[in-house]
Amino acid sequence: MLNVYLSGEIHTDWREQIINGAQGLDVTFNAPVTDHAASDDCGVAILGEEPNKYWHDHKGAMVNAIRTRKGIADADVVVVRFGEKYKQWNAAFDAGYAAALGKSLIVLHGPDHAHALKEVDAAALAVAQEPAQVVDILRYVLTSALPK
Amino acid sequence: MLNVYLSGEIHTDWREQIINGAQGLDVTFNAPVTDHAASDDCGVAILGEEPNKYWHDHKGAMVNAIRTRKGIADADVVVVRFGEKYKQWNAAFDAGYAAALGKSLIVLHGPDHAHALKEVDAAALAVAQEPAQVVDILRYVLTSALPK
Amino acid sequence: MLNVYLSGEIHTDWREQIINGAQGLDVTFNAPVTDHAASDDCGVAILGEEPNKYWHDHKGAMVNAIRTRKGIADADVVVVRFGEKYKQWNAAFDAGYAAALGKSLIVLHGPDHAHALKEVDAAALAVAQEPAQVVDILRYVLTSALPK
Amino acid sequence: MLNVYLSGEIHTDWREQIINGAQGLDVTFNAPVTDHAASDDCGVAILGEEPNKYWHDHKGAMVNAIRTRKGIADADVVVVRFGEKYKQWNAAFDAGYAAALGKSLIVLHGPDHAHALKEVDAAALAVAQEPAQVVDILRYVLTSALPK
Amino acid sequence: MLNVYLSGEIHTDWREQIINGAQGLDVTFNAPVTDHAASDDCGVAILGEEPNKYWHDHKGAMVNAIRTRKGIADADVVVVRFGEKYKQWNAAFDAGYAAALGKSLIVLHGPDHAHALKEVDAAALAVAQEPAQVVDILRYVLTSALPK
Amino acid sequence: MLNVYLSGEIHTDWREQIINGAQGLDVTFNAPVTDHAASDDCGVAILGEEPNKYWHDHKGAMVNAIRTRKGIADADVVVVRFGEKYKQWNAAFDAGYAAALGKSLIVLHGPDHAHALKEVDAAALAVAQEPAQVVDILRYVLTSALPK
Amino acid sequence: MLNVYLSGEIHTDWREQIINGAQGLDVTFNAPVTDHAASDDCGVAILGEEPNKYWHDHKGAMVNAIRTRKGIADADVVVVRFGEKYKQWNAAFDAGYAAALGKSLIVLHGPDHAHALKEVDAAALAVAQEPAQVVDILRYVLTSALPK
Amino acid sequence: MLNVYLSGEIHTDWREQIINGAQGLDVTFNAPVTDHAASDDCGVAILGEEPNKYWHDHKGAMVNAIRTRKGIADADVVVVRFGEKYKQWNAAFDAGYAAALGKSLIVLHGPDHAHALKEVDAAALAVAQEPAQVVDILRYVLTSALPK
Repeated sequence: MLNVYLSGEIHTDWREQIINGAQGLDVTFNAPVTDHAASDDCGVAILGEEPNKYWHDHKGAMVNAIRTRKGIADADVVVVRFGEKYKQWNAAFDAGYAAALGKSLIVLHGPDHAHALKEVDAAALAVAQEPAQVVDILRYVLTSALPK
Repeated sequence: MLNVYLSGEIHTDWREQIINGAQGLDVTFNAPVTDHAASDDCGVAILGEEPNKYWHDHKGAMVNAIRTRKGIADADVVVVRFGEKYKQWNAAFDAGYAAALGKSLIVLHGPDHAHALKEVDAAALAVAQEPAQVVDILRYVLTSALPK
Repeated sequence: MLNVYLSGEIHTDWREQIINGAQGLDVTFNAPVTDHAASDDCGVAILGEEPNKYWHDHKGAMVNAIRTRKGIADADVVVVRFGEKYKQWNAAFDAGYAAALGKSLIVLHGPDHAHALKEVDAAALAVAQEPAQVVDILRYVLTSALPK
Repeated sequence: MLNVYLSGEIHTDWREQIINGAQGLDVTFNAPVTDHAASDDCGVAILGEEPNKYWHDHKGAMVNAIRTRKGIADADVVVVRFGEKYKQWNAAFDAGYAAALGKSLIVLHGPDHAHALKEVDAAALAVAQEPAQVVDILRYVLTSALPK
Repeated sequence: MLNVYLSGEIHTDWREQIINGAQGLDVTFNAPVTDHAASDDCGVAILGEEPNKYWHDHKGAMVNAIRTRKGIADADVVVVRFGEKYKQWNAAFDAGYAAALGKSLIVLHGPDHAHALKEVDAAALAVAQEPAQVVDILRYVLTSALPK
Repeated sequence: MLNVYLSGEIHTDWREQIINGAQGLDVTFNAPVTDHAASDDCGVAILGEEPNKYWHDHKGAMVNAIRTRKGIADADVVVVRFGEKYKQWNAAFDAGYAAALGKSLIVLHGPDHAHALKEVDAAALAVAQEPAQVVDILRYVLTSALPK
Repeated sequence: MLNVYLSGEIHTDWREQIINGAQGLDVTFNAPVTDHAASDDCGVAILGEEPNKYWHDHKGAMVNAIRTRKGIADADVVVVRFGEKYKQWNAAFDAGYAAALGKSLIVLHGPDHAHALKEVDAAALAVAQEPAQVVDILRYVLTSALPK
Repeated sequence: MLNVYLSGEIHTDWREQIINGAQGLDVTFNAPVTDHAASDDCGVAILGEEPNKYWHDHKGAMVNAIRTRKGIADADVVVVRFGEKYKQWNAAFDAGYAAALGKSLIVLHGPDHAHALKEVDAAALAVAQEPAQVVDILRYVLTSALPK
C-alpha cells in the first residue's frame, strides 16, 4: 500500500485525474484543503477576527499546517504540482519539507517551468508533465505493470 | 556563536548588508554560490556537456545541492530572502527543507509578498522586511541588546 | 484519521465537550488519568508505600509517565488546556515535550493567561479559548468544513 | 567539557551564583535573555509595532525562541529554576522540551513546589533546592570530587 | 493499546503470570524465545555447525537478535525481569537498549538485587517485585483502575 | 508479524522458494520489480524517451527507487541475495542502506563469494547459503521452532 | 581523532593500561567516576540524606547518569569491561545503551564469561581479552599499524 | 570546511590525486585502511587466530568497520570509487550506507560501469569519471570557482 500526498496547485482538476486514474490500486490519497476561500479564512472563522490582514493570513496558515504536516508525515510519496499561474511558494515549501524528511518526491509541471524548478526537480525521483504519468508511476511501483 | 545560512535572492546586496551589519558579532555566515552563471553551469563545466537543457540544469542543481545541504545542515538560523522578481522556488524549497529540520527560520520579504508567502511565514520565527532587521535580531539573540 | 491527546487541566469537563463535539469525525482521543486521587496515589498503591511524601509523589508521577509518554508519542495533535487555577506545570511540560517532538500543538486558555503563556502559545499552531473551537479545528482539518 | 543551559526564573541571582561557583570548571553556560523589558519587547522593537498586545507578545516570544532553542539544543545539561512567584510556564515548557530531546535535566526549586512539580521532577536526573547544589553536581560530574 | 516486551529471566513462569493477569486488557505481548536449548542452538541448527563454542554461541545470539530487536523496537513498554540466578547480562543489555530508544522501562526483581541494579532501576519508570504489580501497572495505565 | 524485503539477484527463483516455504507464517514479503526489462525501461516508458543511455538508465533507477525505498523502510528484516553472476552493486547498495537504517540483515550467497562479501556479511545478523535457511530463520524467529 | 568511553569494571587498572598504552595516539578518553565510595554516595552527599537505602542508591545513580550519558553520547567507541566478580549489570546496561545509539562497541572479558556474554558480544565489533588488544585496535583504526 | 570520506577501490592512486589536487582547500580527508594485507588480517593479528577463513575474514571486517563507520558518520561528502576489477561490494555497501544517512554522495567510475551502477548513481549528487573532477567539485563547492 502507498500513502500519497498531493500538494500544490488548486485551480485545476489534476488531483481528480490522479485519484480516478488510480482506481483499483492500493493507494490512499491525502491533500490540503482545496477550497480556496475556506483555506484563506479558516483561522479567523474559527479563532476570531483579525483587523490586520497579515495576522488574518497567519492564523489560517497555521491551522492549515495541522493538516499539511500530518499529510506529508504520513506519506510514502509526495506529489507536488506547479501550475501556470501564481507564485506557488507553498508548493515549493512542501517539496523542501518532504525532501528533508526523505519522502519520495514526484514533481509535476510543464516544460516552461523546468529551469526555474531545477533545484526542486533535483530533489525528486520523478519529474512528470501530466497527471496520467503520475498514475503510471503509482501503478508501476505497486504492480510492476508499464503503460501499454 | 551562531551559524547562519543566507538563502534566496541573489540579485541585490542583501547578504553584504547583513554580513557588514553583523561585524563584531560571533556569527558565521554561509550562502549558496551567488555567481549566477557559475551556478547554472557548474554541472556541465565539471562533469561534461549535456545537449539537453534539462540535464544541463539538472547536473548543476545537483552539484549546487552539495553546498546547499551542508550550509543548511550546519546552520542554527536560516534566513530566506524573497526578492521582487522571479519565481524563486528554490528559496521556498530551502525554507521548507530548513523547517523540516527544525532550524530557526527568518523570512525576509516586502509587504507585497505577504499573502503569497503566508505558509512560509507561518513556519518562521521572524518575518522581516529589511536586512537591517535581521542584523538586529542576530545582535539581540547573541547580546540581548535592542536597537536604539 | 487524527490521533489527538488532551493534556492539562482535569477539573472541568472540557475533554467531554471536545469528545462529544467531535462525534462523527475520524478522531481517536487519548488523555492522562483524570481521576485526581488515583493519579496521585497510583505509585504507592501498586508499588508499595513511601513514608516520605516526595517519593510518594515521585512513584506516582513515574507510573503516570508511562501513559503520558505513549499518549503524546502516538498523537498527531496535542491539545493542552490551562485552567483558571493551580500551577499546571505538568501541562506546560507536556506542551514543551510535544513541541520538541514536532507534534501539532493547540493551546486552550482564557485571555487572562495570554501574557504568561506567550512562549507556549508561540510553539502552537492554534490558540483557542473554548473547547468548541478545538472541535471546529478538528472538523476543518479532517473535512474542510468551516463553522457556520 | 559540559555545556549547561540555565532556564527559568529571572528575578533572583541564581544564575550568577552557579556561574561564580563553577569558576575553574570546564563548563560553558548559556541562558535566555534575562532583561525582562528587552525580552518582552524585542519583537516589536525590531520587527515593528503591534497594536494588539497578543501579537506584541507573540512576536517577542518567537524572537526569543531563536535563542532558547539554540541554547537547549547545544546543552548537555539543562537546569530549570522555579522561583516563588509567577506562573513560570515557560520554565516548565523548557523542561518538557529538554526532556523530549534526552537532555540531562536538573530542576531547582524550594520544597513548597514539590507536589506541583512532581511530573517535572520525575523527568529530572537531580532535584536541587539551592544553586550551590547545582555547582556541586557539576563539579562532581566533571571531577569526581564531592563537597566536603 | 499497549505493546509490551517481556525481557529477561526464562526459568520461572513470570511471563505467564503477567499474560494471564492481563487478560481482558488491550495489550499485545512479545518475548524472546524462552526454550533455552533452542535459543542456544538456533544458529548452528539453521546455518551450519561450528566446532568452536564461541562461534556456535555467536551464530545463535545473532539469530536471536532478529527477534529481540523487533520486539523491543515495536514495544511501548519493556519489562525486564532479573531472577535469582545467573549473570543475566542479556537482560541488562536489553534494558540499556530499551532506555536508549526512549521506551518506558519496568524492572522486575527482588530486594536483594536492588543495589546491584541501581543504574538499571534509575532508567526505569517503575521498579516492581512481583509480576502481579506489573499487571496492576498495565491495568492502571490502560483503564485508570487501581488495585483494590 | 514480520515484514521482509527480498533484495538482490533476479535471475533465479529464490524469492519464490522463500515465499512458498514461509506459507503459514505471519510474514509479509516485498521485493523490487523483478521483470528485468520493465525495471530497465520504466523511466522512459512513463516519463519520455532519452537518446542518451545514461539518462535512460537514470530515469528508470529513480522510479525504481520509489519502490525500493518504501520496501526497505517498511521492513523488519532485509534479505539480500548475491547470485553467481553480474556485479550486483545494487544488492550491496541495498544492504548498506538497510544496515544504516538498523534493519535486521540476512545475506544469502554461496561460499565462493564469502571473502568478497566479508564487509557486507559483517553487517548481517545471519549469513545463509540456501533459501530454505532463510525460511528456517523466519520460522524460528516467529515460532521458536527449529528445523527437524 | 577518536573519542573513547571506558565503561564497566572499576576494581582493576585496565583503564590506566589502555590510556597509557594509547599515548601518542589521537584519542580522548572518558569514563564513569571510578571512586566507588564517591559514586555510591554522590546523590545524598549533594542533594540530602535518605533514610531508605533504595532512594540513597537511586539519587546517586541518577547523578552518575549525567556523566555516563554524556560520555556515551560523545563517544565514537565504547569499550565495556566485564571483570571476574560482581553482577556488573551497569556494564551490560551501558553496552545495550551504546548499541542502540549505533556506537562502535568493544567488549573486554575473559574466556570464562563468553557464554554468558554472547548477546553482548554479538552486538560488538570486537571482543578482546586483554587491555593491550584494545590499544592495538585503537592504534590500527587510527594509523593502520598492526602489532608486530 | 568540508569533511570528505574516500571509499572504495584501493589499487590505484586516486586518493592521492584528489588529496594533492585539493591542497589549499579547506577539506579534511578520511579513508579506510588501504594496506590490503593489514586490512585483511587486522582481526586475527590483534584478537587471535581463527582456523576457519570465514571467521578470519569476519574478525577483520568488524575491526575495519570501527574506522569505516566513523569516517562515514563524520563526513559531509562521501566519494565512492569503483575500479576496473573485483566485485567491490564493500564500495557499493558504503554508498548505500552513506545514502541512507543523507550524506552527499559522489560516485567515481568509468563509463563501462554506468549501467551496472545505475542504482548507485541515482543516489548520488555527482557522477564523475576522473579524480580531477572530484577536486573540481570540491573547489567549486567551497570557493565558487569553476575550472578554467
